[in-house]
Parts: sequence; structure tokens; C-alpha cells
Amino acid sequence: MDKFKRIPHGSVTSPRGFQATGVAAGFKRSGALDFALLVSDVPANFAGAFTSCLFAAAPVQVCRKRVLASETIRAAVINSGNANACTGESGLANAEATCVLAANKLKLNPDDVVVSSTGRIGTQLPMETIKKGLELAVAKLSADGGNSAARAIMTTDTVPKSMAIEFELDNVLCRIGAMTKGAGMIDPSLKVPHATMLCYITTDVKISNELLAQIVESNAEKSFNRITVDGDMSTNDTVIVMANGLSKVEITPDSANAETFRQALLEVMQQLAREMVMDGEGVTKFVHVEISNAQTQNDAKLCAEAIANSLLCKTAWFGGDPNWGRVVAALGYSGAQFTPEKVDVFYDKLPVVKAGGDAGTSEDALSEIVRKREFTVAVDLHDGEESYWVWTNDISYDYVKINADYHT
Amino acid sequence: MDKFKRIPHGSVTSPRGFQATGVAAGFKRSGALDFALLVSDVPANFAGAFTSCLFAAAPVQVCRKRVLASETIRAAVINSGNANACTGESGLANAEATCVLAANKLKLNPDDVVVSSTGRIGTQLPMETIKKGLELAVAKLSADGGNSAARAIMTTDTVPKSMAIEFELDNVLCRIGAMTKGAGMIDPSLKVPHATMLCYITTDVKISNELLAQIVESNAEKSFNRITVDGDMSTNDTVIVMANGLSKVEITPDSANAETFRQALLEVMQQLAREMVMDGEGVTKFVHVEISNAQTQNDAKLCAEAIANSLLCKTAWFGGDPNWGRVVAALGYSGAQFTPEKVDVFYDKLPVVKAGGDAGTSEDALSEIVRKREFTVAVDLHDGEESYWVWTNDISYDYVKINADYHT
Repeated sequence: MDKFKRIPHGSVTSPRGFQATGVAAGFKRSGALDFALLVSDVPANFAGAFTSCLFAAAPVQVCRKRVLASETIRAAVINSGNANACTGESGLANAEATCVLAANKLKLNPDDVVVSSTGRIGTQLPMETIKKGLELAVAKLSADGGNSAARAIMTTDTVPKSMAIEFELDNVLCRIGAMTKGAGMIDPSLKVPHATMLCYITTDVKISNELLAQIVESNAEKSFNRITVDGDMSTNDTVIVMANGLSKVEITPDSANAETFRQALLEVMQQLAREMVMDGEGVTKFVHVEISNAQTQNDAKLCAEAIANSLLCKTAWFGGDPNWGRVVAALGYSGAQFTPEKVDVFYDKLPVVKAGGDAGTSEDALSEIVRKREFTVAVDLHDGEESYWVWTNDISYDYVKINADYHT
Repeated sequence: MDKFKRIPHGSVTSPRGFQATGVAAGFKRSGALDFALLVSDVPANFAGAFTSCLFAAAPVQVCRKRVLASETIRAAVINSGNANACTGESGLANAEATCVLAANKLKLNPDDVVVSSTGRIGTQLPMETIKKGLELAVAKLSADGGNSAARAIMTTDTVPKSMAIEFELDNVLCRIGAMTKGAGMIDPSLKVPHATMLCYITTDVKISNELLAQIVESNAEKSFNRITVDGDMSTNDTVIVMANGLSKVEITPDSANAETFRQALLEVMQQLAREMVMDGEGVTKFVHVEISNAQTQNDAKLCAEAIANSLLCKTAWFGGDPNWGRVVAALGYSGAQFTPEKVDVFYDKLPVVKAGGDAGTSEDALSEIVRKREFTVAVDLHDGEESYWVWTNDISYDYVKINADYHT
């Protein structure tokens, strides 16, 4: 989009007044970067969205507390390699202690600090490693450090996911920067996000916590809530958006600025969602599933999610097999109401199923589409006017390999 | 069980008055057996249970019609290699024509014949192959043919699933025989069965259609409805039980005989369910998931199915990884209500999670269990008195391979 210009090598430190870094503290045996620090030069308004898993990890509990109790925050501490989940009272104390340690180092209050962890569940956070991480990170903090922070939060991700865009509001260039990690455990059935997804977004616009929360929630419904990798949901999902106001541009409710900012943030959130799907564990294909003309949006959603989560569809896509029988079987058991004899299915623009039966398109033509790296499975139910879409991917040998071997 | 004696090499032809056979008609390019015929010497009462998939295959529609309209049946025609699903009016006409052809050959009425198909969806049934199958099968029908019929209905199954038991009622030996196929597409969320599961059961007891249907339904809830391989459900799932009365032993409602027969049939249905889970595509492990002390049975069921269907749990089991974090994550997103801080988890008898956190059992001891071919994941929610269990399995490289390559 022209309106939203992508900044080359942009990151969470692209907006005014943010510093960050990633360091190797020792959570990962490999010696890779595993500890990130993100700091705003001035107090930032913020909004958060979290896993709905009943076993919410300790750092998620701390973040939720900040959203309720803190007007602004200044810093985020993030480690990979240990999820600090299912760690009981000690885990919660360690997450709070991490905030205290960071606050002391940065001369802030603990209430100004949020914390996230990702990695293996059920092991206590090694606090000496946290201390070492803070020591190294505070010394390295810089306005160019966003991309190293994005590297430090990776687990089984194959590429860091970092970006920034700029756009004009009141003739001032404003920026949104972002980093995310997320590979396995991504599913769209949550109220807000749902993944071993950590997503930190920064911006220099000035916006109230309340309006920011509204925009984040409505955008999540059209981005993070539409992606699925394996139907599992994590204990640690976290989205934090920090807005430090240093552009001096104010976003007020129901203004043109608010609409532009919403679109800009959606652009970022959708791009991150796409990158997470494409970088799902062992993924070789990106599949857009579109359901149209359902009686209700819920029917459309049930159909889309049944196809997107069907292991048989996902393995057929991996094999480049246009096996549409698996698509209609998924529709049939989705729980959605529709008339099988009216259903049309398309792969990209090619008809596959016509009125519930074989559309007669050659297997070769269909195979050509399903062998592409990215394609659309579109279903027209001819039964109403509601629609829904999700983004998904295939399941490969490597998905199984990665998840059978994951011990870090 | 002593009460129910397993008959060596037993099959659908073990009960009095049943003949069967399996032949190679040409549905499978490999030349393997792909056409089965099962015939009762006398009219048999019967009950059926079918997929709840909206795209029910043509043969399922024919079977449903028989259940509604026929008092008794005499024969079943089953082909593998073509599902006759999503084949529209022609498909339905072909399924009916199959019954007519079989009836002509066997000197029966078409209403006396049921039909099942399994294999690829969306291709019309080759009627010349059906004719050839009938020609060969009628000539080969025999009272020893049950095991070849069981071979003929296989698709990606690695072993035929065939059995029979005998038990005494009123001092008469009665028998139940059965054959089933089912590998991928097995899921427990249906009212009655749910799998590319074809299951034919024969017995020589005398029982009304109504009582038989009641017993089949209640037993399915404790057998076929408790198994899951990949969460997908098929267009063709069918269970047919035929009771020809040739033992002369009558089963009347609320009698001791009815209870014994129910238990005997449950024994058979559970054994077939176990065999289907163990022979799931690429399966290396059988896992019993038990939830106890939930507030409601539905909470227990949600927990059990979340674990049993979690790709991350299933791949961890394949890898022999005791990763209990994935078990608690699945519990957490299951939608069930419970208190995380009360949850205990056991692998066989070893405590894994105690009060929502690490129970402290050594990784080595836990690994030893998860590396076994069969083990139990037991969850005590300490939150009520309801329980639920399911049987499931792991997901391996071979699952992906089989389903990415399946073109037959």
C-alpha cells in the first residue's frame, strides 16, 4: 500500500524514542540470542491481549496485572527458551522479580515493566540467567537494536519477524514498528490472540489506552484470530502495543486519524500474521481459505476452520494433491448448516466442485495450483450472504520431526 | 474375558448361517482384494449407524433408507477403492443399481441388500467393475469366507480386522462375528460412528430391530465414539449389525440375556475400536486418555478430546518425549471449566504434574513410559465426580507420508 510505506529493515525501534536489543543470556544451550529488552524513552500508553488458556503462564499473569493497574509502561523484558508456565507461586514470584531487577537497572518502577517468556513449559525460570541477560542487554540497548531483539525472541521460527511502516497524520510522519515470534501452537479459536505468539508493537502516536485497546481487539479479529498452524493454543500468547506519543500526533476516537491509524496497525498485524503462518513449523505452503454466501457468519467460520484445521487437507496440500474430497468432507463435518447440493469449490479461479459434485476440471490443472507455494481454496455455499476467511498452511514431515524432537 | 470366548480366526461367517467372500474386482490398480459380499442364509434383522457428515455418500443414503423401510436384509455389498461420495444423482443411482444387480444374482429383492463403499471421494462408481465383482463373489461365497471379506474392505489399513466370539445364552452357544476397516479419518465427535470406518457385525441371536438399535447406540458411545486418529470424519462411516436368529435364542428387552448380549457386543465393538486406533495411519503408539473428577461429564470429555486431538501431544508421543507442558496446554484451551492449581497428571502410575506444577518425577522415568507402545495419560481435576476416557494414538512421519501420497 502506498499510504503505508514499509521502512527497509524497520523494527520496534523505528518509531521515535524506542530502544531495544537482543543478547545471549544462556537460556538456549546453543548460545543463540535468547533475551530481549525493549524500552521507551518516555512513559508509553499501552494495550495488551493474551491467551485464553486456563493455564496462563506467570508472565501473562503479570502482564494482565499491568494492563489493569498501570497507566503507562516503559520497558518489556522477554526471554526465549523457558516459558515460565505451570511453575506455580515460584514462577509468578520469578516473573515479578524479573520486573524488579529490570526496574532497578533502568531506574524505573516495577509497575513500568512487562515481561514475556516463551519456550518449554514447567521448568522454573533460572534467575541467574535473567540477571545476566539484563546486565548484557542494558549495556547494549540502542535505537538500532530492534532487529536483534526480534532474533532473540525466536524459538523454532526459521526467520526473525520484524517490520515497520510509516504514514502521514496531520502532515507528520508517524511510525509503527513490530516484532513477533510464533511457529507451532497457532490456532484461531480465541477471543484475542492464540499462538505461542509473542508480538510487541511500538508506535510514536499519542493515543489513550482505551482507544488503543479497542483498535487492537478489532484488528486482532481480522489478523491473528484468522490464522492456524496446528490447532493448538499456547499458555503464553501475548500481544503488547506501546504508544509513546513522541510524534506529538494525537489519535482521538471517531476521527479520520483514528481510521488511518487503525488501517496502519491492521496492515502491520496482518503482515505479521501472514509471516507467522508461512514460518509455521515445517510449512511449505500458504493457503487462503475463503467461505462465501453462508447463512450466518458462524456457519462460514465453522466451514473455514474445519478446512484449515483438517489434517487430511493439510497433508494433501503438502503432497500437492488436489484431493477435493477431503475439502468437502471437512465442510460436511464442520457443524455448519448448508445444502451440499449447492456447494461450489474453487482452487484459485478454477472450479473444482460444482453443485456438490466433480466440476470436471482436469486433475493436471488442479495439481498445478495445489503445487504452488500459495493458493486459495474458495467455497461458495450459495445459501446466504455471510462470509469468513482464514489463513492456514500445510503439514509436512518436518512438522512432525520438529515437534517430536523439541526438547529445548 | 472368560464369558466371551474368542474364536480362533473368527470372522463375520462364524455365526450360524452367514456366508461371505472377498475378491479382486479391479477397483484397486494394485490387483488386491477390493470387493466383499456378505449374505445371511435367512432374512436377518438389522440395525445401522452412520456418519453425521452433511455430505453423506450415496451408499450411506441407501443404507439409511433400508433402516427406515426394510424389516430385514439378506446381503451386503462392499467395495474399497471408490467411496461413491459427492457423486450426485448418478452416484445414488449407481448405489441403488448395485443393490439391484446383487439382488438379481442372489434371487433377492433390492430392499434386502445394503451397500457400502470406501476409498477416494468424487469419482463415479465403475459399474462394470461392480458387475465383475458380483460375478466373482457370488461364485466364491462360502461359510469360510469371512476373513477374505475383511481383507477386501481394507484401504490404508495395514492388517485386516476380523474377529468372532462365542458365549452361552439359555445353554446354547451364540456367536458374534465382525469385520471392520478404518485407518485415517477417525474422530470421536459424532452421534454414532465417525471414521472412514466400515464395520459389519453378524450374530445368530434373535433380536428385534428396535432393541438391537438401542444396544448398538449405547455400545457405540463406549467404543467407536471414544476413538480418534486425526480428528477428521468421513463421508462414508457405516456400522451395520445383522442378526439372523439361527441360534433360536431370543433376546428380549430388560432380560438377563439382553445384558449378556449387550456386554458381548460391547466386547467386540471395543476390540474393533482398539484395533482401528492401533492400525491408524502411521501409528506407533496406543494412548489411553482418562479424565477423572471433573465437574461435569462434558468438562471431562472436552479435556480428554483436547489431549487426544492435540497435534503437539501426538507428535511428542511419537518422539517418546514426556513433554507434559503440551498436556496441560491442551487442558487449558479445551474449554472445560476446572481449577489449574488442583490438576494432577499421571503417565501410567507415575505422577507428572502435581497441583498444576511439576511433580518432580525424573525425566528418565517418564520417558520410559512414553516410549512404550501403549500407555495411559490420566488427569485428575479434583473438581467434581465426573469422568470420561478416549483412546488415541501418535502422529508419525508415516501419517504425513501416507496422506500426502494417497491417490487411490
